[in-house]
Amino acid sequence: MTHYDTVLAHGLLLTMDPSFRLISDGAVAFNDNQIAAVGPAAEVLAGAEVGETVDCSGTAVMPGLINAHTHVPMTLLRGLADDLRLDVWLHGYMMPVERQFVDPDFSRLGTRLACAEMIRSGTTCFADMYYYEEDVAATAAEVGMRALCAETILKFPAPGAATYEDSLAYSRDFIARWRDHLLIRPVVSLHAPYTATPEMLSAAVELAREFDVPLMTHLCETAYEVEEAERLWGMSPVQWSREQGLFEAHVVAAHCVHASEADLRILARAGAGVTHNPTSNLKLASGVAPVPRMLELGLAVGIGTDGTASNNDLDMFEELRLAALIAKGVSGDPLVVPAKAALTMATIGGARALGVQEFVGSLEVGKRADVAVVSLDGLHITPKFGRSPDAVYSQLVYAAKSTDVRDVWVDGRPLMRDRRLLTVDEGALREAAQSLAGQIDAFLIAREGSVLDKLVGIGGVEITETFEMQVKVKVADPNRIVAILEEHPQIAVVKPTIRRQYDTYFRFADREQGRLRYREDEVLDDDGKVKEAFYILTLTGPVQEREYDKSVLLSRSRFTAQAKRSLRFYREYFQPAKEIQVHKHRERYRIIHEDTAFAVNLDRLLDGPSDDTYLEIKSRTWSRKDAERKARLIGDLLELLGVQDHELVRQQYFELGEEPGAEE
Amino acid sequence: MTHYDTVLAHGLLLTMDPSFRLISDGAVAFNDNQIAAVGPAAEVLAGAEVGETVDCSGTAVMPGLINAHTHVPMTLLRGLADDLRLDVWLHGYMMPVERQFVDPDFSRLGTRLACAEMIRSGTTCFADMYYYEEDVAATAAEVGMRALCAETILKFPAPGAATYEDSLAYSRDFIARWRDHLLIRPVVSLHAPYTATPEMLSAAVELAREFDVPLMTHLCETAYEVEEAERLWGMSPVQWSREQGLFEAHVVAAHCVHASEADLRILARAGAGVTHNPTSNLKLASGVAPVPRMLELGLAVGIGTDGTASNNDLDMFEELRLAALIAKGVSGDPLVVPAKAALTMATIGGARALGVQEFVGSLEVGKRADVAVVSLDGLHITPKFGRSPDAVYSQLVYAAKSTDVRDVWVDGRPLMRDRRLLTVDEGALREAAQSLAGQIDAFLIAREGSVLDKLVGIGGVEITETFEMQVKVKVADPNRIVAILEEHPQIAVVKPTIRRQYDTYFRFADREQGRLRYREDEVLDDDGKVKEAFYILTLTGPVQEREYDKSVLLSRSRFTAQAKRSLRFYREYFQPAKEIQVHKHRERYRIIHEDTAFAVNLDRLLDGPSDDTYLEIKSRTWSRKDAERKARLIGDLLELLGVQDHELVRQQYFELGEEPGAEE
Repeated sequence: MTHYDTVLAHGLLLTMDPSFRLISDGAVAFNDNQIAAVGPAAEVLAGAEVGETVDCSGTAVMPGLINAHTHVPMTLLRGLADDLRLDVWLHGYMMPVERQFVDPDFSRLGTRLACAEMIRSGTTCFADMYYYEEDVAATAAEVGMRALCAETILKFPAPGAATYEDSLAYSRDFIARWRDHLLIRPVVSLHAPYTATPEMLSAAVELAREFDVPLMTHLCETAYEVEEAERLWGMSPVQWSREQGLFEAHVVAAHCVHASEADLRILARAGAGVTHNPTSNLKLASGVAPVPRMLELGLAVGIGTDGTASNNDLDMFEELRLAALIAKGVSGDPLVVPAKAALTMATIGGARALGVQEFVGSLEVGKRADVAVVSLDGLHITPKFGRSPDAVYSQLVYAAKSTDVRDVWVDGRPLMRDRRLLTVDEGALREAAQSLAGQIDAFLIAREGSVLDKLVGIGGVEITETFEMQVKVKVADPNRIVAILEEHPQIAVVKPTIRRQYDTYFRFADREQGRLRYREDEVLDDDGKVKEAFYILTLTGPVQEREYDKSVLLSRSRFTAQAKRSLRFYREYFQPAKEIQVHKHRERYRIIHEDTAFAVNLDRLLDGPSDDTYLEIKSRTWSRKDAERKARLIGDLLELLGVQDHELVRQQYFELGEEPGAEE
Repeated sequence: MTHYDTVLAHGLLLTMDPSFRLISDGAVAFNDNQIAAVGPAAEVLAGAEVGETVDCSGTAVMPGLINAHTHVPMTLLRGLADDLRLDVWLHGYMMPVERQFVDPDFSRLGTRLACAEMIRSGTTCFADMYYYEEDVAATAAEVGMRALCAETILKFPAPGAATYEDSLAYSRDFIARWRDHLLIRPVVSLHAPYTATPEMLSAAVELAREFDVPLMTHLCETAYEVEEAERLWGMSPVQWSREQGLFEAHVVAAHCVHASEADLRILARAGAGVTHNPTSNLKLASGVAPVPRMLELGLAVGIGTDGTASNNDLDMFEELRLAALIAKGVSGDPLVVPAKAALTMATIGGARALGVQEFVGSLEVGKRADVAVVSLDGLHITPKFGRSPDAVYSQLVYAAKSTDVRDVWVDGRPLMRDRRLLTVDEGALREAAQSLAGQIDAFLIAREGSVLDKLVGIGGVEITETFEMQVKVKVADPNRIVAILEEHPQIAVVKPTIRRQYDTYFRFADREQGRLRYREDEVLDDDGKVKEAFYILTLTGPVQEREYDKSVLLSRSRFTAQAKRSLRFYREYFQPAKEIQVHKHRERYRIIHEDTAFAVNLDRLLDGPSDDTYLEIKSRTWSRKDAERKARLIGDLLELLGVQDHELVRQQYFELGEEPGAEE
């Protein structure tokens, strides 16, 4: 007598097998972790001894969904920062928080939270790229989910890995120890070609080949990535990757939003898988991947949610619905990516993309028992038309919701029954996640409260000063000043340079925050061409002034950092209350007077309120005593230069155009 | 002592008021149907006598969502036909089914189903355009929902209205009787400028002005609509509508996907409202509306689901999430339509677009008590960051689902508590809807089973015949045939014409269905230019042949209809198994011989397998006896024309290139 441990009976079976067999009043039976029978319920049940028969009347019984690209620990960062540009979101929020908080516990808690949400929404398998991936694997296995797990390898320091060699070693060790696990497939992940060197790429490919596992990577996600590749390498990221031998591994490429026709054909010839992440691509404004064309070219395409930080959930029903909708709206062709194609991508298509189609992705005898049971009873799926058997695809894709998922089995083990999770304590999970969110909130609130902390948060404060001596005078005849500087016996001119300085001052509602200056400092050659350029951020704290005879001692905190990002980035990241532009032409002299160095500037505002030339003499120091000595010397210098007291200017350049006493 | 009937206390209040006040641990109190207090729970409850206090801890309490554009009775047609082109979907499925099934009961049942789904998903108010709209209104009022209801006025016959005057009269009567209803606002709906005449448009505007109600219309939904307007009117639909005086009414324009900058400025100046329907616009491949630009121009923009037939649900959470996502992905700017803007459109923005912002759309004292309580407890919204108070908008837009809605009040009346509907019997509703779906299924299955029924389904079978006499011979010298025709005393040539005929034959797997011919029949003038053209569909049933001496009697059903749509339409609608093209040059003579009319054709295939000329003599009739007589006459004619027996051709033109015995 045939024995089955479990039979899911009387539902409408969507097998997603090669002939897309639909079986109404069907049954899928499993023994241990394998599917043992698929067919009409009457046939499957006839004469069988069954451990448990689950009544699936009024439901669709289908292979569990496969989330083909995600970063599950980031689920703990859901909604941390939204509606921002990619760089602000990544460098301003995600990476500082990751640097501060990501550790093995973080990966475990985040994975548990993600698994709970995924099981609830009918996902039985996910492909992950993150850090401390062994903790991701261990947690997924504990909860009972199937996963492809890959430690991210990239050329920058990452949580748990100071260098890429560390990630590579971690990957090798992780793969070696987990390769035979029933639920976990440990694989290789190269973050992206643009964060890899050719050596890293080769090493990752070798590792993938050594263990015969796929290599997952981000590819052609943004237009910027492709433009940079063209600039640096003279070819697309896909083409460069091919030259580096990337496709000697089975590549799973996430996104491919900006893959060209030639790129797609390279991917197709290489037998690569692609994962489509429509929500993330829209939310981060990356664009819309050419999915209809990918499918035409026979590429294996899966669907992923990407991390919740750019989604903000792990709901594959939303994802596959969006995949069906967006392809039509953008192509102008309502026939592309019909419901059946969308559900295919989310099941067997994803399995093919990830190279696990032998095990999962469809309801076929011999495959692992990964099954989702979806109630079709909801008012939002009522009524149901039966004219076309394929109508059920449309019901699931366009009308059903993830909350319609009733039961989930993975590897023959029930993870959810009647919408109750069986392997996760939801209450404890919610509490732990919320508690961590509280810590992250506190960290960010403290940081947000201070422009300095935000500056430190994105890295790179290089110089800190406390005192500056400064004097500024309007001069009628700059040539006379230059002549004196160059000829006076008590002054040695060390290094005169001609510069154009484009300064943008950010000022904040809270004056205690000081002001932040973004300077593009161009050094010109004799022909007026740019010889070199410096990009500098300077945060100047609230100033205490002390006047000397002629000069002014400014006591204040002053922090300088290289400005590696764009003005736009800083604007969106620091959110100033006010912004002031000062563009000036500067002749900058380094002079020595009485064995002391000073900067002497002759400045002309380029598009400012005045056409005058100003003379500045400046000196900076950590020492108040030294500052006082320099005040005296500045007085001497002014005399040598023949400057009159009435010419002293108290205002900063950015104040020249403002009304006196205007709110800072 | 202050009295409140109901207080929703301790939730996070999203007031959506002009200052977007957020109140954590807030309370909204109502008396009868009005909001009586909004504020911190401690303040609102202090010293108040409260009928019922509803604990809203862990929830967001917000104004009910406003579905600003839908066709609620169509909810009964959810999933009836998907992934089709607009015209096939509309003319092939929606309209035939509507013609057959839409009546007052249909409108009532569909409205009840839609209301149940909308309440479940937090929608408290909807704007509807359909037929038997008084039944929509009566049902919405019974269930307790707020609605703007408009009988659709268009120039074609519609359910319940043979002419537009009928719809107009219905509208006037409906508005007059319902104008003071607390829940229902009866308004005017012009289907679209392209389905209106100037007189209809003026009459609709006058009606709207007479009763001071908005006028809802579809506008610039598809590129085709705009192209046709340019062709017909030399200007955009918006500009044409302005010239016709449309904007003398308060216009609510649905879609505006293809509105130009000039169009948007016209709408803005006119104070028109716009409704954005992102799912429908994607699903029907219409495109993506320029919502960021609309918002910049200060247009009042609401969000609608459109009818479920193009969505396929009424889930405003999905709609507002998509509105936020799609704007970013298409514009390439991740900062446009942030979460807060999306939720604004779905509440107060929709209210402004519909002209009901005095009553609903925000939680403010004096407004109607239309409130949705949304649980924020779901794992898919965990964790929640509190750093920015605006984070709740992002939680609701990017992570929350419609199924998180816990309670709904409309006009102070609870319609859902703890996810149980209070004014609708869901079971009975599901059963009634499913039963109707069964009838529609049966109607369509019967029709789908028969190409003829499908042909009748889209209207216009004009000629039906049963018998055709036919003979075809290959002729070596066509000029000789013409000479005989023109000169023979027993033959009168009535009307010779030169034609080019482009025939496409559809053949079906089931040969019993016969074959369908789509003919583009061009009549040429003496210079070979097209003088007139006919587009004809001919369905020919399976043929019984009976050979006569020389001619053949074909007994068969034969139906002819004008082909008003494109070949592409018919291809997608009839889904033939095989398609054959025959292009030919035809000299067509109408001749009289023995007082009997015959068609004599001299045909040359243009790009067919043979370069020969064929002579056809044909005659059609309802009568077998008449047919036999004609068989004899055809024999005579062949003799007169000197045709030899061995030249007789048995095949149809489309068979000439096929191998003998090939599967039809």
